[in-house]
Amino acid sequence: MLENTGYQMKRRSIEELIQHLKTFELDLKFSVGIWYFSDHPSRFHAPLGEKKTIEERLEIIAKLKDYGVCAVEAHYPNEINEDNLDLYKKFSKDTGIKILSVIPNLFYESDFEFSSLASPIEEVRKKAIERLKTSLMLNKELDCEFCIIWPGGDGYENQFGIDFIRMRDRFAEGIAEAMDAVPGVKVAIEPKPYEPRGRIIYGLTGEGILLAQKVEKLLQNPENKKILENDSLVGLNPEVGHVLMGFEDLAYAFSLALEYGKLYHTHWNSQPLGNYDQDLNVGVISPEQAEAALYVMKMYGYRGYFGIDINPERMPVERAVINSIDAIRAMNDRINNLPHEDIIACTEKPHKNRGLLEAILIRARSNNPSILSPMPKVER
Amino acid sequence: MLENTGYQMKRRSIEELIQHLKTFELDLKFSVGIWYFSDHPSRFHAPLGEKKTIEERLEIIAKLKDYGVCAVEAHYPNEINEDNLDLYKKFSKDTGIKILSVIPNLFYESDFEFSSLASPIEEVRKKAIERLKTSLMLNKELDCEFCIIWPGGDGYENQFGIDFIRMRDRFAEGIAEAMDAVPGVKVAIEPKPYEPRGRIIYGLTGEGILLAQKVEKLLQNPENKKILENDSLVGLNPEVGHVLMGFEDLAYAFSLALEYGKLYHTHWNSQPLGNYDQDLNVGVISPEQAEAALYVMKMYGYRGYFGIDINPERMPVERAVINSIDAIRAMNDRINNLPHEDIIACTEKPHKNRGLLEAILIRARSNNPSILSPMPKVER
Amino acid sequence: MLENTGYQMKRRSIEELIQHLKTFELDLKFSVGIWYFSDHPSRFHAPLGEKKTIEERLEIIAKLKDYGVCAVEAHYPNEINEDNLDLYKKFSKDTGIKILSVIPNLFYESDFEFSSLASPIEEVRKKAIERLKTSLMLNKELDCEFCIIWPGGDGYENQFGIDFIRMRDRFAEGIAEAMDAVPGVKVAIEPKPYEPRGRIIYGLTGEGILLAQKVEKLLQNPENKKILENDSLVGLNPEVGHVLMGFEDLAYAFSLALEYGKLYHTHWNSQPLGNYDQDLNVGVISPEQAEAALYVMKMYGYRGYFGIDINPERMPVERAVINSIDAIRAMNDRINNLPHEDIIACTEKPHKNRGLLEAILIRARSNNPSILSPMPKVER
Amino acid sequence: MLENTGYQMKRRSIEELIQHLKTFELDLKFSVGIWYFSDHPSRFHAPLGEKKTIEERLEIIAKLKDYGVCAVEAHYPNEINEDNLDLYKKFSKDTGIKILSVIPNLFYESDFEFSSLASPIEEVRKKAIERLKTSLMLNKELDCEFCIIWPGGDGYENQFGIDFIRMRDRFAEGIAEAMDAVPGVKVAIEPKPYEPRGRIIYGLTGEGILLAQKVEKLLQNPENKKILENDSLVGLNPEVGHVLMGFEDLAYAFSLALEYGKLYHTHWNSQPLGNYDQDLNVGVISPEQAEAALYVMKMYGYRGYFGIDINPERMPVERAVINSIDAIRAMNDRINNLPHEDIIACTEKPHKNRGLLEAILIRARSNNPSILSPMPKVER
Repeated sequence: MLENTGYQMKRRSIEELIQHLKTFELDLKFSVGIWYFSDHPSRFHAPLGEKKTIEERLEIIAKLKDYGVCAVEAHYPNEINEDNLDLYKKFSKDTGIKILSVIPNLFYESDFEFSSLASPIEEVRKKAIERLKTSLMLNKELDCEFCIIWPGGDGYENQFGIDFIRMRDRFAEGIAEAMDAVPGVKVAIEPKPYEPRGRIIYGLTGEGILLAQKVEKLLQNPENKKILENDSLVGLNPEVGHVLMGFEDLAYAFSLALEYGKLYHTHWNSQPLGNYDQDLNVGVISPEQAEAALYVMKMYGYRGYFGIDINPERMPVERAVINSIDAIRAMNDRINNLPHEDIIACTEKPHKNRGLLEAILIRARSNNPSILSPMPKVER
Repeated sequence: MLENTGYQMKRRSIEELIQHLKTFELDLKFSVGIWYFSDHPSRFHAPLGEKKTIEERLEIIAKLKDYGVCAVEAHYPNEINEDNLDLYKKFSKDTGIKILSVIPNLFYESDFEFSSLASPIEEVRKKAIERLKTSLMLNKELDCEFCIIWPGGDGYENQFGIDFIRMRDRFAEGIAEAMDAVPGVKVAIEPKPYEPRGRIIYGLTGEGILLAQKVEKLLQNPENKKILENDSLVGLNPEVGHVLMGFEDLAYAFSLALEYGKLYHTHWNSQPLGNYDQDLNVGVISPEQAEAALYVMKMYGYRGYFGIDINPERMPVERAVINSIDAIRAMNDRINNLPHEDIIACTEKPHKNRGLLEAILIRARSNNPSILSPMPKVER
Repeated sequence: MLENTGYQMKRRSIEELIQHLKTFELDLKFSVGIWYFSDHPSRFHAPLGEKKTIEERLEIIAKLKDYGVCAVEAHYPNEINEDNLDLYKKFSKDTGIKILSVIPNLFYESDFEFSSLASPIEEVRKKAIERLKTSLMLNKELDCEFCIIWPGGDGYENQFGIDFIRMRDRFAEGIAEAMDAVPGVKVAIEPKPYEPRGRIIYGLTGEGILLAQKVEKLLQNPENKKILENDSLVGLNPEVGHVLMGFEDLAYAFSLALEYGKLYHTHWNSQPLGNYDQDLNVGVISPEQAEAALYVMKMYGYRGYFGIDINPERMPVERAVINSIDAIRAMNDRINNLPHEDIIACTEKPHKNRGLLEAILIRARSNNPSILSPMPKVER
Repeated sequence: MLENTGYQMKRRSIEELIQHLKTFELDLKFSVGIWYFSDHPSRFHAPLGEKKTIEERLEIIAKLKDYGVCAVEAHYPNEINEDNLDLYKKFSKDTGIKILSVIPNLFYESDFEFSSLASPIEEVRKKAIERLKTSLMLNKELDCEFCIIWPGGDGYENQFGIDFIRMRDRFAEGIAEAMDAVPGVKVAIEPKPYEPRGRIIYGLTGEGILLAQKVEKLLQNPENKKILENDSLVGLNPEVGHVLMGFEDLAYAFSLALEYGKLYHTHWNSQPLGNYDQDLNVGVISPEQAEAALYVMKMYGYRGYFGIDINPERMPVERAVINSIDAIRAMNDRINNLPHEDIIACTEKPHKNRGLLEAILIRARSNNPSILSPMPKVER
């Protein structure tokens, strides 16, 4: 189970912050999602890539260990289930690659066409709650870190006449019911503003935090209440692309989850603002967003995983994962080598260092700073 | 002072909800903002319209009473201040038009170029807190409903290296400090995602609720703590255009504030998704958003004001206000006359009434339903 | 074959325009796309609805004739092809429903993963050109109006290092080559800015016109050159949702195609700005966009079809088509009954009628204008 | 006057292209706009920075020469006019800094509230045409490169009932009338999708090209017709921020203008997709867009200027200009040092080099490629 993430809430003085930035480096533990190691249908084109069995996928994942992959995530029941559990256990034992999360699939089946946990149709909602319970049990059995919940199918297209409070209550109460039935398992919400629904509930980072608080308040099982005394049970798994589809600022969004001690996990890819869900490799679009987000994670001492969550449509999945890992490594290397005291002086004394943060970053991103103008001195 | 808005959190059974929809109608109390009754500068064009004194503006507002305007909002100190307070008091007494809110101006002066309450520059932040205190006092003295805070200048353009948690702490603690210094005054946060900053903190509805909770938790003054025992002190004033600039769904956003008993006020206009802040008259763009939002307010029994918050650039302000009021009246008339039982059957039993919500709305928006296909029966 | 659309370019004096608006009404001839009469895969959820044979689909379409459906569109070869051509012919003869367009499928097969007509891979591009040729022949054989080309798969995700001019040349030259091989068939380009590619070439309305011009300039076959002497051969089929995904204004976009005599066809649905491709029923989102577009079409005397291009995921396709038709009928009824002379006075003498266009529209959209303020007189 | 830009239309074989990329480097000639060297009003905050006279501004610009500034742009009549022409001439003679463009101000004055060249109000439109004529004359007298036209005030908020074709005709015919009155001066259109109007006509790159073609077709003066025989007279000045406000892809947009030999000039800054017009310094947001655009310019041999068009609100203008220049220099250095043959192999043989373009770019943007995985061999 995920460690107590309360450490994220620690406030540091400016001096402590600078000291922390100089000494703390992010531990780049990479996780992958087994879903994108096989082809998948798409509305507008045939599956690209090949259909692969779970065995074949795990084999590829094992080979990625050398590049830094040390964990894997899978959906219940379509990717991991009672029948193939041993396969995963053996894989994990053999390779040392951890099963990070068993994720209930609450979106694919047509039963969930009008939402899952938030469905107004009682039998559908029950099915969703049962599926979540089983997933929580598997997370427990496999000693995963947390159970990710992505409310992908819970939403609407036409906003008229919906009793939204009732809808959100159903969603939150469904999670709480399952968590109380299988206590002691942490849950990481992955918000997404839209697609495959016109609108998905709890779609933005701030709303994800509100949901986490709401569920925690509903929990009744003594084991859960005990944990809540000095830890949390519901946190977030922000997905870079989802955050940007919602036109949020990535570094800010991560910092919001961190402020509440709720950055349980992170899902990485790249994406333009708005648009459809592209799940491009890390760094292809707006690398400055990813870099700033990494710096915020360093700033607050994030100790979790870096989940690669991509959709490699026109290249082998291995290449896509390796590119994404390389992109993060290169960015992380850059931010570790920044003049942290100057950076903080620029953001905490902006009136004395006008334009100098940019000047630092231009140089840090240049292959050849010597061709640029002289760097002015930062006033610390 | 604004009444206890805890009533918004009431959960109703489906039967109660239908009964409520049949009997409760929104009370269209309109408020105007004195700022848009005079011209103002703009980056790309000369002021359109005429510069008007406060007296002249109040005179126009008085004439709008017949159309339903019964309240006015003003910024401290540029529109309302110690020197002209009597003018407002007399206006209010003579016309019966209420001073709804004295809003601290925390964005216009260049002192606030690097944020106001969230500024890292101590003297700037102090100035902002003092201004908020004075504003709270004026709200008290004039028996306003709440003090609106719009964090328009508190943000950033370059997200790199900012200690966001510290920044948000400064903002929330600044509000709490002022509220404890002038206890008993409610505060309504008006989030906006961007403009005039590249990014504004607490810019989305969910984040506004998080801020409200954070400030309430920081309050120490016994008078405030007493109020918090069964009421709230910090709520939201969502502005339609701001919500849509953030690509949020309006009805959903309003419902989120209502769920927390925090829909203190509403600011109305129209706006495309994204874009710059246009403050167009109500109903010009995406009228279906406004209509759905009104229905959600009716659903949860909203009893507050309807603030018209526009920027009438190419028409007299009177016409702009009257158009906006007429647009809301027409929409409200439509939603009151809907078959509520059918509407709720469509949203609560979607699998039994596929496509029928749309069919109802097409007819309700048609001037001539007789030319359309026969309406199928809704299964209740 | 589509009539000469040069009539769209006719300029009218203001008096002629008013007279035209008073006398010309759009002829609501509806067309449907056979693709959405069966289920289809999706990335994030199982197909909703049922798989249906072509026969079953045509049967449903036949039943929609009473509602105004008089034409059908189909993709080659997955929906219409050499083997089932007789089926379509018989359907058309029996029902009087026209085969409007045979559309080459240039996006679905994985061969086209790196573009079709624009592919840098010679054998892929050849396959695409051949497919287009066959489609053109079928359009000729069935006496369709035009061959729609949707460049859905021709684009890129990473914009770096692409020789865009070469890429667009390949696309345009490919169309020209096929059109010269099968002369006398008009082509209607359907631009889309993105999805299923991160970026699709020729994705905006203005770019569609540039492409049409470019292809026409490349044509060499004497039969084609003869037609071009006083008619056009390449026009547009703007799709409402695609236009709005590109953040374009619908009425303006339609007017641009009309200015060039190139509004060959229109595809209707509704869609928020940006977002993923939702293909919602007409009128669900931003009905004011559709209404203004209809008025522009009336203004320039559009005589083409209204293609319903939707993706009915949670309702029977019949209901979705009927709703969309009803929504257009209701809007069309509204715009026909507007005071056209006043409308044009508002847009041509804006300084004399400030705010009055809005006032007219508010009343036209109200079910009960008597509850609104008195309507001021428009200065004609 | 700007040289014949027909060279941009040259098609190169792949071998020629690679050879060209290896030998041609962009000539970084920087231009600045005198408007942002003084403060300016804003809707939401007081002017930041200081008000400066034209003399003071020119003095600052002179000092930027060492950094690469060699040209300046100014609006008529508010920045450059008959009274201060000598001042500019002397400045230019003394410093060697060229007056690049005299830009008619067609947006600021309230006369233009309902558009300028496109205004339906005859006297307003006349004023706009006269102003354009005078500006063209000044461009001639000062031997500028081209006259920039930014249709910032020509648009609408409410799209209903506008005769768009008439509106665009007025705009294009107004330009043609002025150009024929002052023949021999090239015009560079700067499209912008919105702000300060809800919608601006000819707002996207493709539409800018259509406008350029339309105006050229209208020209009658023999001197102009003579030039058009083997050169163009109307081109584009795409502004990075405007292109991105329209959600266009920058490299693609530049390539579109280049295809038509119409990339007369470029205005540089940075901007998120959509949003309000921020005019941030180059490279702050989405540096990958700027880098790809530079590569496209290199690819087609662009020989024009790099105009810095920013709005330095919280830093001295010198710092903002220098940062922007440094950012472009660093990017240009990076793209010049790429393995061009590999890049083109990746984009022209994508099926043989899956994922390798990204791998090249990740390394080129890394300060420390040695920590990354081994780079696979590109198949040329």
